[in-house]
Amino acid sequence: MTIGVCYFPEHWPREQWESDATNMAEAGIEYVRLAEFSWAVLEPERGHFEFDWLDEAIEVLGAQGLKVVLCTPTATPPKWLVDERPEILQADIDGTPRHFGSRRFYCFNSPAYREETDRIVSRLAERYGDNPHVVGWQTDNEFGCHRTVRCYCEDCSAAFSDWLAEKYDTIETLNERWGTTFWSQRYPSFEAVDPPQPTPADHHPSLLLDYYRFANDSVVDYNRLHANLLREVNDEWFVAHNFMGDFETLDAHAVADDLDLVTWDSYPTGFVQDRREDDPTLDELRAGDPDQVSMNHDLYRGTNDAPFWVMEQQPGDVNWPPTCPQPGDGAMRLWAHHATAHGADAVLYFRWRRCRGGQEQYHAGLRKHDGSADRGYHDASQAAAELDGLDVAHVDAPVALLHDYHDWWAISSQPHAPDFDYWEHLRTYYRALRARGVQVDIVHPETSLEDYALVVAPTLHLMSEERADHLSDYVSDGGHLLLGARTGYKDSYNRLPDARQPGALSNLVGATVDQHESFPASVDLSLMYDGDAYDYRTWSEWLNPDEADVVAEHTTAGVTEAKPAIIRNEARRGTVTYVGVWPEAELANTIVGDALQTAGVTSTDVLPDGLRVAERDGHVWVTNFTSDAVTLDVPQGTPCHVGESKTERNDTVDVDPFGVAVVECRVDDVAVE
Amino acid sequence: MTIGVCYFPEHWPREQWESDATNMAEAGIEYVRLAEFSWAVLEPERGHFEFDWLDEAIEVLGAQGLKVVLCTPTATPPKWLVDERPEILQADIDGTPRHFGSRRFYCFNSPAYREETDRIVSRLAERYGDNPHVVGWQTDNEFGCHRTVRCYCEDCSAAFSDWLAEKYDTIETLNERWGTTFWSQRYPSFEAVDPPQPTPADHHPSLLLDYYRFANDSVVDYNRLHANLLREVNDEWFVAHNFMGDFETLDAHAVADDLDLVTWDSYPTGFVQDRREDDPTLDELRAGDPDQVSMNHDLYRGTNDAPFWVMEQQPGDVNWPPTCPQPGDGAMRLWAHHATAHGADAVLYFRWRRCRGGQEQYHAGLRKHDGSADRGYHDASQAAAELDGLDVAHVDAPVALLHDYHDWWAISSQPHAPDFDYWEHLRTYYRALRARGVQVDIVHPETSLEDYALVVAPTLHLMSEERADHLSDYVSDGGHLLLGARTGYKDSYNRLPDARQPGALSNLVGATVDQHESFPASVDLSLMYDGDAYDYRTWSEWLNPDEADVVAEHTTAGVTEAKPAIIRNEARRGTVTYVGVWPEAELANTIVGDALQTAGVTSTDVLPDGLRVAERDGHVWVTNFTSDAVTLDVPQGTPCHVGESKTERNDTVDVDPFGVAVVECRVDDVAVE
Amino acid sequence: MTIGVCYFPEHWPREQWESDATNMAEAGIEYVRLAEFSWAVLEPERGHFEFDWLDEAIEVLGAQGLKVVLCTPTATPPKWLVDERPEILQADIDGTPRHFGSRRFYCFNSPAYREETDRIVSRLAERYGDNPHVVGWQTDNEFGCHRTVRCYCEDCSAAFSDWLAEKYDTIETLNERWGTTFWSQRYPSFEAVDPPQPTPADHHPSLLLDYYRFANDSVVDYNRLHANLLREVNDEWFVAHNFMGDFETLDAHAVADDLDLVTWDSYPTGFVQDRREDDPTLDELRAGDPDQVSMNHDLYRGTNDAPFWVMEQQPGDVNWPPTCPQPGDGAMRLWAHHATAHGADAVLYFRWRRCRGGQEQYHAGLRKHDGSADRGYHDASQAAAELDGLDVAHVDAPVALLHDYHDWWAISSQPHAPDFDYWEHLRTYYRALRARGVQVDIVHPETSLEDYALVVAPTLHLMSEERADHLSDYVSDGGHLLLGARTGYKDSYNRLPDARQPGALSNLVGATVDQHESFPASVDLSLMYDGDAYDYRTWSEWLNPDEADVVAEHTTAGVTEAKPAIIRNEARRGTVTYVGVWPEAELANTIVGDALQTAGVTSTDVLPDGLRVAERDGHVWVTNFTSDAVTLDVPQGTPCHVGESKTERNDTVDVDPFGVAVVECRVDDVAVE
Ligand SMILES: [Mg+2]
Ligand SMILES: [Mg+2]
Ligand SMILES: [Mg+2]
Ligand SMILES: [Zn+2]
Ligand SMILES: [Zn+2]
Ligand SMILES: [Zn+2]
Repeated sequence: MTIGVCYFPEHWPREQWESDATNMAEAGIEYVRLAEFSWAVLEPERGHFEFDWLDEAIEVLGAQGLKVVLCTPTATPPKWLVDERPEILQADIDGTPRHFGSRRFYCFNSPAYREETDRIVSRLAERYGDNPHVVGWQTDNEFGCHRTVRCYCEDCSAAFSDWLAEKYDTIETLNERWGTTFWSQRYPSFEAVDPPQPTPADHHPSLLLDYYRFANDSVVDYNRLHANLLREVNDEWFVAHNFMGDFETLDAHAVADDLDLVTWDSYPTGFVQDRREDDPTLDELRAGDPDQVSMNHDLYRGTNDAPFWVMEQQPGDVNWPPTCPQPGDGAMRLWAHHATAHGADAVLYFRWRRCRGGQEQYHAGLRKHDGSADRGYHDASQAAAELDGLDVAHVDAPVALLHDYHDWWAISSQPHAPDFDYWEHLRTYYRALRARGVQVDIVHPETSLEDYALVVAPTLHLMSEERADHLSDYVSDGGHLLLGARTGYKDSYNRLPDARQPGALSNLVGATVDQHESFPASVDLSLMYDGDAYDYRTWSEWLNPDEADVVAEHTTAGVTEAKPAIIRNEARRGTVTYVGVWPEAELANTIVGDALQTAGVTSTDVLPDGLRVAERDGHVWVTNFTSDAVTLDVPQGTPCHVGESKTERNDTVDVDPFGVAVVECRVDDVAVE
Repeated sequence: MTIGVCYFPEHWPREQWESDATNMAEAGIEYVRLAEFSWAVLEPERGHFEFDWLDEAIEVLGAQGLKVVLCTPTATPPKWLVDERPEILQADIDGTPRHFGSRRFYCFNSPAYREETDRIVSRLAERYGDNPHVVGWQTDNEFGCHRTVRCYCEDCSAAFSDWLAEKYDTIETLNERWGTTFWSQRYPSFEAVDPPQPTPADHHPSLLLDYYRFANDSVVDYNRLHANLLREVNDEWFVAHNFMGDFETLDAHAVADDLDLVTWDSYPTGFVQDRREDDPTLDELRAGDPDQVSMNHDLYRGTNDAPFWVMEQQPGDVNWPPTCPQPGDGAMRLWAHHATAHGADAVLYFRWRRCRGGQEQYHAGLRKHDGSADRGYHDASQAAAELDGLDVAHVDAPVALLHDYHDWWAISSQPHAPDFDYWEHLRTYYRALRARGVQVDIVHPETSLEDYALVVAPTLHLMSEERADHLSDYVSDGGHLLLGARTGYKDSYNRLPDARQPGALSNLVGATVDQHESFPASVDLSLMYDGDAYDYRTWSEWLNPDEADVVAEHTTAGVTEAKPAIIRNEARRGTVTYVGVWPEAELANTIVGDALQTAGVTSTDVLPDGLRVAERDGHVWVTNFTSDAVTLDVPQGTPCHVGESKTERNDTVDVDPFGVAVVECRVDDVAVE
Repeated sequence: MTIGVCYFPEHWPREQWESDATNMAEAGIEYVRLAEFSWAVLEPERGHFEFDWLDEAIEVLGAQGLKVVLCTPTATPPKWLVDERPEILQADIDGTPRHFGSRRFYCFNSPAYREETDRIVSRLAERYGDNPHVVGWQTDNEFGCHRTVRCYCEDCSAAFSDWLAEKYDTIETLNERWGTTFWSQRYPSFEAVDPPQPTPADHHPSLLLDYYRFANDSVVDYNRLHANLLREVNDEWFVAHNFMGDFETLDAHAVADDLDLVTWDSYPTGFVQDRREDDPTLDELRAGDPDQVSMNHDLYRGTNDAPFWVMEQQPGDVNWPPTCPQPGDGAMRLWAHHATAHGADAVLYFRWRRCRGGQEQYHAGLRKHDGSADRGYHDASQAAAELDGLDVAHVDAPVALLHDYHDWWAISSQPHAPDFDYWEHLRTYYRALRARGVQVDIVHPETSLEDYALVVAPTLHLMSEERADHLSDYVSDGGHLLLGARTGYKDSYNRLPDARQPGALSNLVGATVDQHESFPASVDLSLMYDGDAYDYRTWSEWLNPDEADVVAEHTTAGVTEAKPAIIRNEARRGTVTYVGVWPEAELANTIVGDALQTAGVTSTDVLPDGLRVAERDGHVWVTNFTSDAVTLDVPQGTPCHVGESKTERNDTVDVDPFGVAVVECRVDDVAVE
C-alpha cells in the first residue's frame, strides 16, 4: 500500500530536479509517473528525437529509489505532425474538425495516426527497454476525455462499414437484426451505412448502439496497439491505462482485457459538482461523496478482479469543476485511505507542482507553483507513512453489482424520461449496499457469479438467451438475484424481444412487464411494500406475476394504483426479486437490506451519509467524509492501526472531521456511538 | 362516425396478417391506412419494384370488409436513392445537410426529388387505380415535422429568387415594399436575395416573412404534385394529408385547397407536455387538455368547412414527449368521442401494433409487440360500437375565430417579449369560448363571415385595406367583432402602416394605439373593467379612443396607469371591441362572455377545467378529461346515447372519470350538478 | 451642454425634410448625425455615386442652423459589394461565414474590405471637405456589436501570425512566454499558430489572451484607417466613434487614442435587462440603473480625460431587450441631465423618427412613425431648454477606478466560478463610490495617478513589474490604494508569476495569497471586519500577511474559517488595502467608506438605491431614478437651476419621480430629507 506522484520535469528548470526528487523521497513516495503529453519535447521536429532530458530525469529520480512509470505521449501529437497530416483530426457530428489547441483531437481510426503512434511508442519503448528504474507504462491518457470516444470523420465512416461487415457478414442480416424496414431504412450495402450524422429526427436505435460499440472498439484496438508494442520490447513491464470516473462512452471491461493494471483518476470535489444529479453540500464540496468515488474504485477493481491504482489523485483545489473550493483539512489523506480500503495498491497524486503556464494553472499540485509545500504535500506524506505498514490482500466482496456499458448506451439514446440516467439508477442500489458497509464488486454480467452470495442487477436492459441462462444457472445454484427496472427490454441488437419484457428472463422472474410509464418530477410516485409506504421516482412498471409473489403494489394516483410494482420469485434453489420502479433512497435501503438478509451477507445498520466503512483483508477502514467528528464502538481490545483509541480498554475509536481510522475487526463489529 | 387504424404489414411475418385482419374487423374497424414509409420495400433498388406484398395485404384486409387508405411513401426515400442523388437533401440554416437516418430529409424544391416523386407516385397509383378496396390516399406524412418546412439549400436559394420575381416583378418594387434602405439592405437583383443564413444580428423582417411564405408555398406545390398525379389515375379517390397539432410553419389553409379530406394526428398526452406553456397536471398527463386538442379539431374542420378525420389517434403511451405516462382508463375511447363531437367522421388509431425495431419502439399500438391486445384495443372497440349508430351532420358553429398563419410567422420573428406566443394568445380566447360550450370555427380572415353571430380575431397583425373592408362589411351587416392586441400593426409586407395602428382598421375600431409595451412575468399587470379588477399578462397597449368608448383602464403601476386598455365602438349596425392586452383567463372569460351575450350566442355557464360540452347536429357530447366522476342535469326525458341515466326520469346523466356521455338536447340544457 | 439627434432622411420622402428640420430646431436641437448605414444609397452600384440627396439633406438642416455629424457608412457594405468580394465576410469559430442580411458581417482584417473602405471614406470625405455645416465624423458604428470583434476567417489567421511575429520576434520566445510545453503545444513557426478554433478541451490561456488582443488591435487599426483618411481631408473635423455600454471585447482606451471625441450609445432600460446579473425592478424597467449607466459615462470620459458625448440616447421604448416597457414620464429628460452631470457635453437621441421598415420597427424615435411628436420629443425639448444655460467645465474626480480590458479578457476565459464576472465585480466597487456621491474616473492602470486622493483597483489581474512600480510610486507619494481579489495572479502573458500572488505587488501589499477558492451561490460566505459580520460572494482568498495588518478574518465554515480575508498595509507615505473576497454591497459600502475617509475624500452618506448625486464644476445634479418623489435639504439660499425650491429660504428642493434637480453647492451639502 503505497503512494506516488505525477511529475513533469520538462516544465521546470533542470537545476530543481534533485530537490524535487529529495522532497518526493522524504514524503515517502514510491512511484513517479513521467512523460505524459511529452511528444513535442521528445520529438521537436520529425525524426529529430531528444531523449536526454528524460534519461536524466529518470536517473535523478532513480537515484532516490523512486520507481518510474512512463506514458506513451499520444494524447497530444505535436503541431508539426498535425500540420503535416491533418487527416488525423477527429470530426464532430456535423463535420466540424476537432482542431489542435488542447488535447485528444486525433482519430482512433486514422491509419495515419496509427502509423505515427507505432513510430513514437516503439522508439520510446526501445530507449527504456533496459532501464532498471522503469517499472511499467500508462498508455496515452484518459481515453475519451472531452467527449472524444465518438468521432464522425471519413476514416471512421469507412471503419464503421468494415466493422459492420465483420459483425453481420451480409447486409441482409444487418437489415433483419436492426429492423430497417421501419421508416424505409434498409441499407443496400455495408458501404452505405454512415455514422449517425445530423438528420431531422432521432437516429435508428440499432444503428446508434452499434455505432457506440464500434467507437468503443476503436479505442480498444488503439490501446492494444500500444500494449503490443510495449510488451514486445519488455514483457516484465506492466501496461496500464488511467480511466476516468463516472464515464459512459468507453467500456472499461473491454479495454482492461489488454491491461496488466487498471488505474483511474479520482477527483472527488470535482465529480460531486458535475457528474451527479444532486447539488453538493458544503461537506461534499470539501471532500466529495464517498459512494460516488468508491463506485469507481469498485468498478475498476472489478474489471480484472485485481488490485487497482489511483493514477491521479486530487491534490487540493482543481480547475475544471464549476467551482473550486479548498478541500477539508486532511481530505487528501482521507482519499488515499478510502481508495486503499476499496482495493487500491497505490495512489499517485496529480501532480507534483502547480504549473505556471497552460490550461491547468488553476489546478493545485502537492507543491505550489513557487515550489513550496502545499496542503496536499503534508496530507500525502501522512498517508504514505500510515499506509507503509499496511500490506493487505485483495478485497473479497460478497456482493456483485452487474453493469454492462452497452446497456448504458442503449438507455442513454432512449431515456424515455429526461431524468432517467442509467448510472444514477445504478448508484441508487450501490449506495444502499455501501450504506450497510458491504463490499461490492461491479462486474460484467457474464463474469462468473458462483462466489457471490447476492447479485444485484439494476438494469440488464439488453438481454440474450445466453445471459439469461447464465443468471438462471446462478439462481439454480442457490443464488439470490435482485433485478431492477427496464431489465430485459431489448435484445442485443436493441430491438424489442419477441415476447414481453423481461424477454428471455421471464421464466426465471416468474412475471412479465404489463406496462411501463414515466413521469415528471412534479408527480408523486409511491408504493406500499410490506405494509409501509415508500416513494419512488421517474419510472413505473406494472408487473404481471405468473409464479412470483407480489411484494409491493403501486399507490401512485390514477390508473397506476394497485398494480403490482415489485415481485419475488422463489426460483430453483434461490430467489429472484424484480423491482419495477426506480426506488428513492429509503425504499432502496429496505429492498437491499431484505436482500442482504435473505442472502446472509454480513452488514452494518444503515450508516449516516458521508460516513462509510469497508473491510479489506481483516482490516476495517472507517472513512469520515463529513465535518463532524465521530466516535465508534469496537470490540474490546481491537487493534487500531490508524486513528486514536479513546479509552484504555480499546473499545472506542475517534475519527476526526474528514478523518480516518483503520481497525482490525469485522465490519459488523463497528458501530457509531 | 367510424374507427380505423394505421397498419404496417411489412413489419410482421406474412402468416400473421389474416389474424390481424380478423382482429381489426372484430373491433369494428372500418378503415386501414397502409404503405406509409414503404418506399424501400416497394422499390428495393432502382427500377426494381416489389408490389406483391402490398397487393396481398390489401386483399387480406379487403376480404374482411376493411377499406384501405394508401400513402405516397415520399417522407422516406430509400438509401440507394439518397446516395445516387445526394442533392435532394435539405440544408440547415448554417449549411449542414440533413442526412439520411430518420425521415423528412428531402428538399421540397429539389428538381431531382420532384422527378423521383413523380416516378414512385405514378407507379403506385397506376398499380392500385382499379383496386376496389382502396378508397383514398394520404400524401406523404406530416409535412414539416421535425422543423423541415424551411430549408436553406442551393435549390431553395434559387427557387426563392424565382418566387420573389414572380411576386414583385421588379427588384425596385421589392426594395420599396420591404424598405431595404434600412441598414443598406437594397438588393441589386432577385438573384442576389438569399435565404436568411447566419448573420450577426436579426434578419430583415420583410425578408423573413417572405421566406416563410416561400417555404410554405414550396410544400403546397409539392403536395399538389401528389394530388394531381393521383387524380389523374382515379378521380374517385379522396386525397388527404395528415397535419400535425399546434403546428406553426405550414399553412393548413393553403395546403387544404388541394385536398378532398383534411386529417390530422392527435396525441393529447404528448401535446400537453411540449406544445403548451403551462406544466401539465397529472390529469392532463393521463388524458391531455381538451381545449388544446379541440382547437386543432376546429382548425382543421375550418380549413375546408367540412368533416375531417383524425388520421392518427394516440393509442396508449407514446415515445416522443419528455415523459410517457399511461393514459387514464378509457382515455383512448374519450378521444374518439371528443373528435367526433368536434366534427370528425373517422378516427384512425396509430398504430395497429407496437413495433419491435426502429425509432418508435416506445410507442404503443392497439396491440402489444407480442401481438396481444393492449389497452387501446379495448377502448377502440368500445368507441367503434358506440359511434356506429351515431350518424350526425356537419358541425354548425355560431362563432368564428380568425387565424392567419402569416400573422403567426410575423409575430414569431419579432415577439418583442420572450413569452409572446401567437398561438398561446389565440388559445386564451379559444378557451374562453370552449369553457362556455360554444362551437368555434377557426377560419382564415378572408373566409365569408356572414353566418357567424360573433367573430373573434385575437391578432390580425398584418392588415391590408382589403381585409379591413371585409371586416367592416361584416360589422356593417350587424356583426359583432372582438379584436385583440397587436392587430393592424403591420402591412402585408411586414412594414409599419403609414398611419398609426391598427392602420387600415382604425376607422372601424374608432381608436388608435398610442403606445405599446411588454413586461417580464415578474411585473403585476392589471386593469379595471366594468368596476372589477382583472389581471393581464406580457403585453399592454395604451389606446387612444376617437369614436369608441373606454370600457377598461390600466391599473398597472407607473406611466401605464389610467391609460385606456379596452374600448368598444358601436359601429354601423354591429359592435367592435378592441382589447389592448393579453388577458389572463378570468378576464378572457368576462370579455368573451359579454361578447357572446351581445351577439346572442347560446352558451353554458363557465364549465370547470377539463370538463367540456360540444353540440353536433342536435347531440351534445359531454367529455370528461378529469379523474373525477361528474353528474349532469339534463331536461327530463333527454335521450342518452352514450353514458348512463341515473334516474328513471332521465334527468341526470353520470359521466365517469375520463368518460363521455352523448345526449340529445341543446348545449345550454346541460348543467353540472 | 446641448442636445442632438440621429436622423435618416433617406428613409422618408423628400418633401418632409423641411418640417423635420423645423421641428428639430424648435426642440432646441443643435447636432444632427447623418449617413450611418447609407452606403447602398450613396453608391447603389460600383462606382456610381449618388450624393445629391445627402447634399440636400445637409443643406436643409444647415438652413435651420443645425450642425451635422457624418458617419463613415462601413458597418453595412451593400449587397453588390458582398457578392463581388465574398472574402470580406467574417467567419464564426467553427468556420460558418457571417452572411449579409443584417450588419457588421465584414472582417476588420480583410485586405479587400480595407481597400473598399478607403474608397468610400475618401470619396465621402472629399465631397464634404469644405461643407460649412459638417463639424465632425463618426467612424463606422458600434465596432464589435453582435459579437463581431473576434473573427476566425483565413485573413484573420494570417494576420494573427503576423501580429505574433511582430510581438515576439522569434517563435522560441513565444513558446517560452506562453509556456507551450504544457500539453505538447510548442509551435514550430508563427505560421503554425491558428486562431482558437473548436478543439476538444479549453484552449491555452496565453493563446486566447493574445488572440483577444490581436482581434482588438485589428479594430483599432481599422478605425485608424478611417481617422487618417478624414484628417487628411479636413483636420478641423473632430473624429469620433460611438462605443457601446458594458462592452467587453473592444478596448475603448486603445481605440480612443485615435479619436478626438469619445461617444457612446446609452439605452438604460435595455442594459438593465441583459447586461446585469440581477433581475430588474419595475422602476429599473422604467428608467434603468443609474450606476450601470454612469459607469459607462465615467469609463468613456476617462479614456481621453475629456468631455464625451452620448451619441445615441434612448428616446422611448426600444426593440432589442427581452421586454420593452415604456420609460417613466420624464425619463428621457433625466438621462440627458444624468449624462451631463457625468461629463457629457452633448446628448444625441437615437433617432428622429420610428422607422417603417427593417429590423428596428419596434424602436421608438422622438417622433412616431406617422411623423407626430412622441413622448421623447417633449422630454428632449425640455432637456434642451434646461441645459442651454448651463455651461460647466470638465468633471474633476477625486477617485480613480483602475480598469484594463486585458484583465477582463483573461478572467473571462478562466472565470473559475460560473458567476465570476469581471465587470460585475468592478461594478460592486463603483456602486459603493457612487452611493456616496463621489465622482470616479475609470482609467487605465498606467494613467498618471498623482491627482487622485484614492485609487481603487478591483482586479489588476495581469501584473508586470512596470505596473507594480507605477502603483508603488503612487503610494510612496502618499496615495491610498484599495486592491481587490485576483489581483496580481498572472504576468502579462497570462502565466502565473514566478512568486506567489500578488506577484510583483507582494512587497507593496505586505502579504501574499496563500490559497484561493470559489463557491456556488448556495454556500454562505462571510467574514468579520472591525467587529461586524458581513457577507461576501463567489470568491475567497486566504491571505498571508507579512508586514500588513489583518483587518478581516473569514467566518465561512470549514477550513476557510479564521483565515485572514482583508489586510491593510501602511506602506511608504500612503496605505494599501487588499480585499481577498468579492464583497456583497454592505461590505463594499463599509470598505469603500473607510477608504474615502482615510483618503479625505468629500462624500455623502450612503444614498438610497436609485437616487444619485454628482458634482460637476460647482453644480450638483440630483437624479432620481425611482418612482418616488424626494425632498432634499440644501444650504439656505442655494441657487437652484433645475427643479423647484419648496420654501422661501431656498433650503429644500423637490425632485419628482424620475426627475432631476441642479443646485449650485457641494455634493456633501445635499441630504435626503
Ligand atoms: Mg460508411
Ligand atoms: Mg437566391
Ligand atoms: Mg496563422
Ligand atoms: Zn474518426
Ligand atoms: Zn432546399
Ligand atoms: Zn476575419
